[in-house]
Amino acid sequence: MAAEQLTVALDANGADAGPAVVARGAALAAAGGEIRVLVFGPAAEIAAAPGVEVADAPVSIAKAADPARAVRSTPEASIVQAVRAVAGGRADAVVSGGSTGAALAAGLFHVKRARGVHRPALAVLVPVPGRPFLLLDCGANVEVRPEHLVQFAHMGAAFMESVIGIARPRVALLSNGTEPTKGTEDVQAAHAALVAAGRADDEAAAKRRRGPRPGEDRGRALAFIGNVEGFAVGTGEADVIVTDGFTGNVLLKVMEGTAETLLRAVREAAMSSPRAKAGGLLLKPALGGLRDAIDPEAQGGAFLLGLRRLGVVPHGSFGAQGIARAIELAARGVRADVAGRTHERLAAAGALRKRSGERSDDERAARGRQDPARDGSPSAPAATVPDP
Amino acid sequence: MAAEQLTVALDANGADAGPAVVARGAALAAAGGEIRVLVFGPAAEIAAAPGVEVADAPVSIAKAADPARAVRSTPEASIVQAVRAVAGGRADAVVSGGSTGAALAAGLFHVKRARGVHRPALAVLVPVPGRPFLLLDCGANVEVRPEHLVQFAHMGAAFMESVIGIARPRVALLSNGTEPTKGTEDVQAAHAALVAAGRADDEAAAKRRRGPRPGEDRGRALAFIGNVEGFAVGTGEADVIVTDGFTGNVLLKVMEGTAETLLRAVREAAMSSPRAKAGGLLLKPALGGLRDAIDPEAQGGAFLLGLRRLGVVPHGSFGAQGIARAIELAARGVRADVAGRTHERLAAAGALRKRSGERSDDERAARGRQDPARDGSPSAPAATVPDP
Repeated sequence: MAAEQLTVALDANGADAGPAVVARGAALAAAGGEIRVLVFGPAAEIAAAPGVEVADAPVSIAKAADPARAVRSTPEASIVQAVRAVAGGRADAVVSGGSTGAALAAGLFHVKRARGVHRPALAVLVPVPGRPFLLLDCGANVEVRPEHLVQFAHMGAAFMESVIGIARPRVALLSNGTEPTKGTEDVQAAHAALVAAGRADDEAAAKRRRGPRPGEDRGRALAFIGNVEGFAVGTGEADVIVTDGFTGNVLLKVMEGTAETLLRAVREAAMSSPRAKAGGLLLKPALGGLRDAIDPEAQGGAFLLGLRRLGVVPHGSFGAQGIARAIELAARGVRADVAGRTHERLAAAGALRKRSGERSDDERAARGRQDPARDGSPSAPAATVPDP
Repeated sequence: MAAEQLTVALDANGADAGPAVVARGAALAAAGGEIRVLVFGPAAEIAAAPGVEVADAPVSIAKAADPARAVRSTPEASIVQAVRAVAGGRADAVVSGGSTGAALAAGLFHVKRARGVHRPALAVLVPVPGRPFLLLDCGANVEVRPEHLVQFAHMGAAFMESVIGIARPRVALLSNGTEPTKGTEDVQAAHAALVAAGRADDEAAAKRRRGPRPGEDRGRALAFIGNVEGFAVGTGEADVIVTDGFTGNVLLKVMEGTAETLLRAVREAAMSSPRAKAGGLLLKPALGGLRDAIDPEAQGGAFLLGLRRLGVVPHGSFGAQGIARAIELAARGVRADVAGRTHERLAAAGALRKRSGERSDDERAARGRQDPARDGSPSAPAATVPDP
C-alpha cells in the first residue's frame, strides 16, 4: 500500500562527511518514492536525484559558538531555511545535517514549542541488542524542573507508542537508587508526580475501559515503573528512561566510551597469542553482527520532541545510510503523528503547561534561579547541545 | 623492609557473603603480618586467625532505611563500633562490610569531617584496562555546590598522588561538553574556580621552584585539564574525574551495565554458530584476563575521603579476596597519609572551608535551597549511598 508522499526538509551542512554525502542520503531516502526531500545546502556540491529538490543555501552555522544568536543573525543559514520550510508548511519535518544546538535553536525560534510544552527534549533510541530504550533528555536542557521531567515521561511514552509500536511503554525515572527517596529534590518531586500521574491515568483508564473503546484508552495510561539506576541501560526493564539533559548526555557518552573501550580490549585480547588470534578470526563474523546491532547510525539519530513539528538530528559522523535512515524516521514520525499524540497524552494527563506560566515563574523566583530558557518565550535553550 | 604494623577496624556485617567470608578476608589481609585487623561482627560465626582480633558485635544496621537515624539509635551496631574504634585511636582506618550509607553516617558522626572539608566524598578507582581513573563523588552527595566540586578535585588529586603514586594527576570536571560554558550553572562556576585554582597553584609552584624543594612543590599544583565528556571513561585523558554524587553514581552503574551487556552479547555471539563456538573457546583464556582486569573486586571498593580518618567501602558482593584487598588498600592509604596530604593540598590551594561557614550559608540562602547536610554540623549526608 503506497502511503501519501511526505516532504522532509534537510539541512545538508554541518555533518563531518560534507554536504555531498548528506545529499546522497537524501537520494537514498527519496528513492522509494514515498518521501520527497527538500535539501538546503551548497547546490554546487549536491548531485541531482529523483525526489530530491535542492535549494541553494551554502551558509552554515553548524559550528557557531552561540547557536541562538547565529539563528537570529543569519536567516540565510541552511538550518534556518530548512526549519522555516517546515514552519511555513512546505515540509512536514526537519532533519539537520549535524549541529543539534543550531537545529534546536532554529526550531524554537521558527517552528515553536508545541502548545503547553515547557521545553523540547532530545530523545535517543539507544540500540542495546534486544533491549532498545528511549532516553530523554539527552542534552537539550541541562537544568530541568520536576514538571519538565513529567512532560518528558509523557513525550517519551507517546513516541514509543506511535513510532515504535509499543502498546504500553514502561517509563522509568533515572536516579541513584530505586527508592522514591533517592535522587535530588527535583528527582524526588518528579517521582511523586509521576506516581500520581500513573494512578490518575489508571483510574481514568479503568473508567474508560467500561466504555466502548478499551484498547485505545488503555494505551493512554502512563505505565510508570519507578526509579531505575544506571544498570538499567542493559537490563531492558524500561522502554523509556527519563532524566535531565546533563545526566542524559553523560549517560549516552559513557555508554559509547565503555563500549568502545571494551570492544578495543576484546580486539587486543584477540591479538595476545597465536591461539587467541585464531579464535578471534573464527569469531569475527559473529562479532560483526554485534557491532552492527549497536551501531548508532542504524538508529537514525536523536529526535527533537516537543516542537510543533518533528525534528531529527543525526549524529555528526553519519554517512549517507545514516542520513537516509534519519529522513525515513522523520517521515515515520510524521505518519504516526508523534506531535499530535504527544499533545493528546499530555492533555489527558493534565501535564500541559498552565496558560500564563504563573506557576513556573513563582517557582523560579522561589528557587532564586536564573533561567535563560524562559517558558513563555521561544528563546534559546539553556545550553547548546553537542551531538549525542 | 617491614613497615610498622597498622590496625584496620572491619565491620563484618552487611556483605552479601556473610560475616564468616568477610572475616576470612581479614585473615588473608593479616597473614602478611603488617596489618592487624579488629573485626566487629558476630563472634560465633568468625574463625580465629593470626593478626585478627574479634569483638562480638552481632547487631547490623547495614539494611537500615535511614542510616543516620540508625547510627544514632544503635550504638552497639558493628559499623558504629568499628568507626568508634578509629575515632578513639584503637584503629587507623575503617573498612565497612557492605553498607555505604551506614559507613558514611557513622563516619560523619564519630570520626567527623576533616577540618575545612565541606563534605566527604565517595571515590572509586575505575578499573579501565591500562587507563584507570578516580571518580568522585560516586554517591555521597547528590546535590553539591561549586566549592564542593573544587574540594573534590583537590581530594582526588591528593589521593592519586599519595596512594597511586601519580606525580601530577590530571584532574577533569565532568560535563556535557568540553567548553567552559557547558554544563549547569554550578558546573560552570566550578570550572571557573578550578581554572583559577590551577593558575594560582602554578604561580605558587613557580615561585617555590626557585626555592629549595622543587620536586615537592610541583606535586602540589592542581593540573586541571578542563571539562571532559562521558567518553572520557575510556580515553585515559584524566586521572581524576570530578562530578556530583548523582551523576557519578549513574556513571558508574552505566559503565557496569554497558560492560555486562556487551560481554553477554560477545558470549552470545560466540554461541551463534559452530565456527563462532570454536573461536570463542580459543579466545576464552585471553578474554578471561580482560574480565579480571575490569573486576571491581580487584580494586578493593570505594574510598571515603574527607573524614579525619580514611574509610574503605567494599562492594556488597565482594568475597574474601575483595575484602582483603579493601583492608590492604585502607592500610596503604594510612601509610601514604591520604588524610594529611589532602588537608595540606586544600590549605595550599585556599580551598578549605571558611571557619564560620558564613559564605556557605549566604550562598545557600541566596539559592533558596534546603540543605539537610549542613556544613557546620556533623549531620547526616544529603542522601544515603547505595553500594557503588
